Amino acid sequence: MEIGIIGLGKMGYNLALNIKDHHYRVVAYNRSHEKIKEAEAEGLIGAYSIEELVSKLSMPRIIWLMVPAGDPVDEMIENLIPLLDKGDIIIDGGNSNYKDTLRRYKMLKEKGLHFVDVGTSGGVEGARNGACMMIGAEEHVFKVIEPIIKDICLEKGYLHTGKSGSGHFVKMIHNGIEYGMLQAMGEGFEILEKSQFDLDYKEVAKVWNHGSVIRGWLMELMERAFEKDPQLESIKGIVHSSGEGLWTVQEALELQVPAPAITDSLFVRYRSQQEDTFTGKVIAALRNEFGGHSVEKK
Amino acid sequence: MEIGIIGLGKMGYNLALNIKDHHYRVVAYNRSHEKIKEAEAEGLIGAYSIEELVSKLSMPRIIWLMVPAGDPVDEMIENLIPLLDKGDIIIDGGNSNYKDTLRRYKMLKEKGLHFVDVGTSGGVEGARNGACMMIGAEEHVFKVIEPIIKDICLEKGYLHTGKSGSGHFVKMIHNGIEYGMLQAMGEGFEILEKSQFDLDYKEVAKVWNHGSVIRGWLMELMERAFEKDPQLESIKGIVHSSGEGLWTVQEALELQVPAPAITDSLFVRYRSQQEDTFTGKVIAALRNEFGGHSVEKK
Amino acid sequence: MEIGIIGLGKMGYNLALNIKDHHYRVVAYNRSHEKIKEAEAEGLIGAYSIEELVSKLSMPRIIWLMVPAGDPVDEMIENLIPLLDKGDIIIDGGNSNYKDTLRRYKMLKEKGLHFVDVGTSGGVEGARNGACMMIGAEEHVFKVIEPIIKDICLEKGYLHTGKSGSGHFVKMIHNGIEYGMLQAMGEGFEILEKSQFDLDYKEVAKVWNHGSVIRGWLMELMERAFEKDPQLESIKGIVHSSGEGLWTVQEALELQVPAPAITDSLFVRYRSQQEDTFTGKVIAALRNEFGGHSVEKK
Amino acid sequence: MEIGIIGLGKMGYNLALNIKDHHYRVVAYNRSHEKIKEAEAEGLIGAYSIEELVSKLSMPRIIWLMVPAGDPVDEMIENLIPLLDKGDIIIDGGNSNYKDTLRRYKMLKEKGLHFVDVGTSGGVEGARNGACMMIGAEEHVFKVIEPIIKDICLEKGYLHTGKSGSGHFVKMIHNGIEYGMLQAMGEGFEILEKSQFDLDYKEVAKVWNHGSVIRGWLMELMERAFEKDPQLESIKGIVHSSGEGLWTVQEALELQVPAPAITDSLFVRYRSQQEDTFTGKVIAALRNEFGGHSVEKK
Repeated sequence: MEIGIIGLGKMGYNLALNIKDHHYRVVAYNRSHEKIKEAEAEGLIGAYSIEELVSKLSMPRIIWLMVPAGDPVDEMIENLIPLLDKGDIIIDGGNSNYKDTLRRYKMLKEKGLHFVDVGTSGGVEGARNGACMMIGAEEHVFKVIEPIIKDICLEKGYLHTGKSGSGHFVKMIHNGIEYGMLQAMGEGFEILEKSQFDLDYKEVAKVWNHGSVIRGWLMELMERAFEKDPQLESIKGIVHSSGEGLWTVQEALELQVPAPAITDSLFVRYRSQQEDTFTGKVIAALRNEFGGHSVEKK
Repeated sequence: MEIGIIGLGKMGYNLALNIKDHHYRVVAYNRSHEKIKEAEAEGLIGAYSIEELVSKLSMPRIIWLMVPAGDPVDEMIENLIPLLDKGDIIIDGGNSNYKDTLRRYKMLKEKGLHFVDVGTSGGVEGARNGACMMIGAEEHVFKVIEPIIKDICLEKGYLHTGKSGSGHFVKMIHNGIEYGMLQAMGEGFEILEKSQFDLDYKEVAKVWNHGSVIRGWLMELMERAFEKDPQLESIKGIVHSSGEGLWTVQEALELQVPAPAITDSLFVRYRSQQEDTFTGKVIAALRNEFGGHSVEKK
Repeated sequence: MEIGIIGLGKMGYNLALNIKDHHYRVVAYNRSHEKIKEAEAEGLIGAYSIEELVSKLSMPRIIWLMVPAGDPVDEMIENLIPLLDKGDIIIDGGNSNYKDTLRRYKMLKEKGLHFVDVGTSGGVEGARNGACMMIGAEEHVFKVIEPIIKDICLEKGYLHTGKSGSGHFVKMIHNGIEYGMLQAMGEGFEILEKSQFDLDYKEVAKVWNHGSVIRGWLMELMERAFEKDPQLESIKGIVHSSGEGLWTVQEALELQVPAPAITDSLFVRYRSQQEDTFTGKVIAALRNEFGGHSVEKK
Repeated sequence: MEIGIIGLGKMGYNLALNIKDHHYRVVAYNRSHEKIKEAEAEGLIGAYSIEELVSKLSMPRIIWLMVPAGDPVDEMIENLIPLLDKGDIIIDGGNSNYKDTLRRYKMLKEKGLHFVDVGTSGGVEGARNGACMMIGAEEHVFKVIEPIIKDICLEKGYLHTGKSGSGHFVKMIHNGIEYGMLQAMGEGFEILEKSQFDLDYKEVAKVWNHGSVIRGWLMELMERAFEKDPQLESIKGIVHSSGEGLWTVQEALELQVPAPAITDSLFVRYRSQQEDTFTGKVIAALRNEFGGHSVEKK
């Protein structure tokens, strides 16, 4: 069996190696050619254009996209369409918005091409040694790719979530839950930090990982982070976000699901990127007006 | 009719003048004597000790405390007790926690002294020219002080809210609602400020004050604030709080009333006083661990 | 001066009467013809088709749409386009999403037609006797319609907020702030209601309207509502929403403005429409698993 | 080595068995005598009064309280004091508020008695087979009890968190984080449930437990819960709380730590216990007043 991989970033590259390890023939393309050479050195078959990649695969072709979400996915699909034949399969393994996925699926279906969405969790390490995958696809298409999926995921680490879009959707919700969990952990440790007790945060995270209700991978990472920097003194509390938390909140709003914890998690991240806020200025100015409370001048 | 005022701060001083304007005999005491002289110059009767104040009032005495909430109220009451006679009335016109009020009421009642709690709104201007007062008192005690209250408040601007504690309680909730309203206004104006439109905030506040659903005194103050500083460039968005918002949230928690808007208003204020947060550090550190997301180094 | 009104619903009908009172010639069309007859009886000029309406106006025509936001606005504009001449003005006086407004403005501009967005506050009473309006329009177009706007609004009750879209945008934020204010009031009164005190809510609202910091129109309405039903016993706490609160939150998310109070207000409304929640079931089930806490069976 | 256990509820009974398994001499007392007999049948030494329990232990005695938090702890301590000798150790293994713990520690210290607070996580199963414990104690006292603690906890499953109170404090924060995590999971699954996709929740929880970022014990329990009831149809979404979430929020407020996610988790639980809300009634009534929006009548 064989597969083409487009996009040899951190995730794509490791996924490609993971697949190759399981004795598949992997043809790999990347915009920057250096990365292709690196891949060739590892035993992957390099392709220096998508035309070359397509030509090196036999039908029905399976082409796995690992390019950034958004326009790059659309562009790559546009470029691939004229090169492909009916029955070929494109897999989008990135963090795409499931609504884009639904649109792309429909468009490709009309052209006789199959489109599969794969939400991937587990980070770079997972991509390399055993990932967790949520796959949206028609049943018969899923059957075609299942052998590969099975090989590159952890045992029980993949799920055919249902029809097109469902893979990216379930991954999106996974990330939304993650936002809320991270925020809860952040709040908890900040209360510990402000408290009268003199606690060893690493030891706290560690004990919580041995038998407590909140044990889990995130708490293990917490332990690891405090091991490196016991008070997190070296870093700033500025938190960025990559889109899936926002989409989860937007989805909650559309479906009228009260989701205050996940939403607050997102707002806290936005706030962390602001030095000062207009909201605060407004309130300070108003308190000064009605109560004569002094404002802090710049 | 006559009354003693203890505490000639911004609020107490103006309240004393307001009462005097209505032809009451006002005996005024303050810790710092300069303020007493100022009061005398305005026609108030100065008292340079609380003994003097008590001795200058005829029974049943009415003594209005305008001292800071907390210990100062307890101390002043302790000092007054040996000087007073059964049937005398102490009024606490400050922003006391209603639970303290209930405790003080009970303690004074056992000694035959009356205790009245008055929550005052309307700011310094209101204290001087017509306040809004919420009064917790036994019916017969309220009847005694009602003539004064009626004179110094705006028309319809006072309410006997019920038994002891209710005046401070209703005032506390008033402030809690105020927290939420201020926050909603802050959020609204920050969205305006971040938007693609080039808006004149003062004009926006002004038009909202002429016929809109959200017109009110706070929006008038908003207009005034933007008139002084159209972009609020001169001030920092750091917001302090004086206790009543916190007490409102604590009360909501005890009574199991979901109060997310008022609570978030309080948290936003706390956050405004932090430069960086441990919560943010924790989340940034965790994202770095699982996703290799870069952290911002200090 | 003359104007055409399309849509004689509650708001449109009263607005038409308001304009007529100021001695404008008002041509009025409505889908249901009965309402047109009613309008004729009040002195408005009826038009039984939009063709008739257009033909009864001289150029440059001013046509004010008061139809429901969304598709009806698009449909009416589509129907009007072939009937209008360059330089004619369409006003959208409904609660349209400002993004739709920007799209319609651009499309109409290409056809030589002017498009003005008017956000209206003040309810039916305002529409009839003096509204509060936020107007997005090109300067020279605004100048054309300003005389009418001035006549039908309260004194100082209108603002040319800026370019196209800004009127609906500012109105949207107005409603967002309103959501937060209502929620804060709701929380405050629920704490009063759950408290140990036996309060007369109408009297509380009333005293707050006489000199307090939170006095305003909403508190006046609160007083009125409690006057009709002192404990609100006759109604259910189910709160619907018409879109602008949702749009405000969506805008906050896009602009990365932390807006927890307005967002919580929206979630509380959504929650009020649910009898039971899946969120609650999930948590109850989990607590049962780890702590043996009993669940309530259906 | 030997120990006395007071309180043979679900947790206490299993803890006692756990200790006995490690070849300690365990003297057990319970208010209801049936449970003592049951314990005797399992090889524990029954004591039918606390006097008997104390008399059966040699000095320095170690007495582990597993009684409900609050007054029962105070009462039991009061009863024990006259029976104990200087140097004896009382352990409170319940979910006590750490402020009570600090008070009790101080009081007992003055009497020459040691007091240790143990926060226990891991549920009934953990109590029986290996718990996770956070222990607040003076260093030398901790040393005395460490051998037992080590035996009954999972490997690395205990931590001497620091001085008195810190064990219960860290356990409290553990529960606070748990509240937030549960809420995030609840929100995520409710969005899944309301979505257009037809998902098998058990399978989703399962795949998330194999390699995803949010894998952990709570997600394993989620899987188990959905296995028993795939749509959670049999239970109501009413969620109670036992105090530690509330205390966490109260602590956050006191320390001025913004903790919106944990707080919202608590409010969502409170809301789940309400059929209708006064907040909702207030908002519905106000919308009816200003916009003529119809209210739902009871």
